[in-house]
Amino acid sequence: MVAQCIKQYIGRGVVFASTAVFALTVYGQVSIAPIEVPSDINMAQAELGKKLFFDPRLSKSGFISCNSCHNLSMGGSDNLPTSIGHDWQQGPINSPTVLNASYNLAQFWDGRAKDLKEQAGGPIANPKEMAFSHAAAVKTLQTIPGYVAEFEAVFGDNRIDIDRLTSAIAEFEKTLVTPNSAFDKFLKGDKAALSAEQQAGYKLFTNSGCTACHNGPALGGTMYQKMGLIKPYKTDNPAQGRFDVTKNEADRMFFKVPTLRNVAMTYPYFHDGAVYDLGEAVKIMGELQLGRSFSAKEQAQIVAFLNSLTGEQPNFDLPILPPSAAHTPPPQPFKP
Amino acid sequence: MVAQCIKQYIGRGVVFASTAVFALTVYGQVSIAPIEVPSDINMAQAELGKKLFFDPRLSKSGFISCNSCHNLSMGGSDNLPTSIGHDWQQGPINSPTVLNASYNLAQFWDGRAKDLKEQAGGPIANPKEMAFSHAAAVKTLQTIPGYVAEFEAVFGDNRIDIDRLTSAIAEFEKTLVTPNSAFDKFLKGDKAALSAEQQAGYKLFTNSGCTACHNGPALGGTMYQKMGLIKPYKTDNPAQGRFDVTKNEADRMFFKVPTLRNVAMTYPYFHDGAVYDLGEAVKIMGELQLGRSFSAKEQAQIVAFLNSLTGEQPNFDLPILPPSAAHTPPPQPFKP
Repeated sequence: MVAQCIKQYIGRGVVFASTAVFALTVYGQVSIAPIEVPSDINMAQAELGKKLFFDPRLSKSGFISCNSCHNLSMGGSDNLPTSIGHDWQQGPINSPTVLNASYNLAQFWDGRAKDLKEQAGGPIANPKEMAFSHAAAVKTLQTIPGYVAEFEAVFGDNRIDIDRLTSAIAEFEKTLVTPNSAFDKFLKGDKAALSAEQQAGYKLFTNSGCTACHNGPALGGTMYQKMGLIKPYKTDNPAQGRFDVTKNEADRMFFKVPTLRNVAMTYPYFHDGAVYDLGEAVKIMGELQLGRSFSAKEQAQIVAFLNSLTGEQPNFDLPILPPSAAHTPPPQPFKP
Repeated sequence: MVAQCIKQYIGRGVVFASTAVFALTVYGQVSIAPIEVPSDINMAQAELGKKLFFDPRLSKSGFISCNSCHNLSMGGSDNLPTSIGHDWQQGPINSPTVLNASYNLAQFWDGRAKDLKEQAGGPIANPKEMAFSHAAAVKTLQTIPGYVAEFEAVFGDNRIDIDRLTSAIAEFEKTLVTPNSAFDKFLKGDKAALSAEQQAGYKLFTNSGCTACHNGPALGGTMYQKMGLIKPYKTDNPAQGRFDVTKNEADRMFFKVPTLRNVAMTYPYFHDGAVYDLGEAVKIMGELQLGRSFSAKEQAQIVAFLNSLTGEQPNFDLPILPPSAAHTPPPQPFKP
């Protein structure tokens, strides 16, 4: 197994994966598990968070919302190589899907946010993304009567601050799981849920070592791994993964392993969004991460399996946002 | 009546409004009517149109959808003075609400599109908006298996062209009516639906001549009128309304009268989006269009009435878009 001797982060610790990898690669082991709908959601908070997720007034321009780059109509991503930010700035990295993000050991490709709540605050204040500030976003919400009332109903008093704002968004994001994919039905015992080709692809996926990294209920998100493990990954994108956070040479090009759930919807692939074709992405992963050239037939089998990972997409009414008041600070779309 | 001798367009003809205005300004006349839910919708076509309305793949960037500037979470508008287009270009005019737009005699502020279908094709091909072409949008959709199947189910065969594309969007937009506002309940006989202040505001609204222009079920959209009828409207915005279409001097600064339905949600106001405060907008309209200075009390009464025009907002599940295929032309967000 090529991945056995590779240093891997699992959770927040560092382990050598030699034994774990063997367990993972046995066909149908429990480390690959169905997506489950969480039962511990504060629904009032999540409803508030849903509005905030869709609200472009959290950006300086009044035009960009969380949903702009994590579009829940499109697999929780923007389907662009890298995102578009304030003043049409080109973002540095591919927007990861928000779907099933609660399964991630940390957030962002480099794991610089420890959880959904910390992540939610990032883009608001990032000058290349929503280009606002936490103070300005909070001040805006404080002037909107509908939000003041809803924060009071949810939190017990009408204080609006960045902690509550990001807590509500995170609570909503916890609901964004995609259960009942064909693969989940298969895992739960319905062997007819996957075609013969998909089952062959699943077997190949596990036996080839893909599950060394793509494991857990989300088939990803459980560890960091080097992009270009066997052969270097060629890209113009300057991101260096965990290294950008830790400045530790050993972390160079270690990125959070992305979830493969709904991967048929979350193109283009890799941290630089360089590849639109899922088959091509499989081929590259085989070569760079596993040192293996999948045949055309094998590649098609794995793609067929990956297509079985599309689950039930978030199903909710489009939120209606509470209108601003006359004294709400107006957005500043054309001030860079 | 100041508006009596003003040439007005009603429907596609031209009439002098002297007698009509008197009828309209009588308190509670039938020309002000409730919003009704249309019964003649092709629901399959509207469902397809809903997806298309939310699909940013109709833009060159893959980032801008109809919903970007006619955001159904925000009163069918973007709540910006003028819109943001491809490459963050500043749009020339305030984005009119799509809500109840089926009641408009024509589309756009200058009426250059005769109906919703014709309007829907405009922004797709406008280099300052979605910056795509009809051919490119159609070609993109033709590669998306989910759309091919849905066009076939809706239209009887799988041909995708701009005519069907815009027909489906228009059919969806016909569903975007906002019935059952407090004002509609009042019109239908529930006199308690409006407060005393709102009823006073409604009376003032009709007796002051506002209904000379803001009439019909949408309280607007039935005619063109000069912006700055009594006193000139001062703006840096170069738009000249109907004149830009007809090149007829008599049409200079004649704009389509905007609907007042959901006006509390569709700030900022006027074709240049210059005013965020509804009270201020009422004051300016009184002075410029009616030659009348409303007192603070009168202004508050009219605003209270206008707040009663917020109806039930569109209520539907966020659409999930069919994913692109490997051979779908990739979006080009950073090519201006």
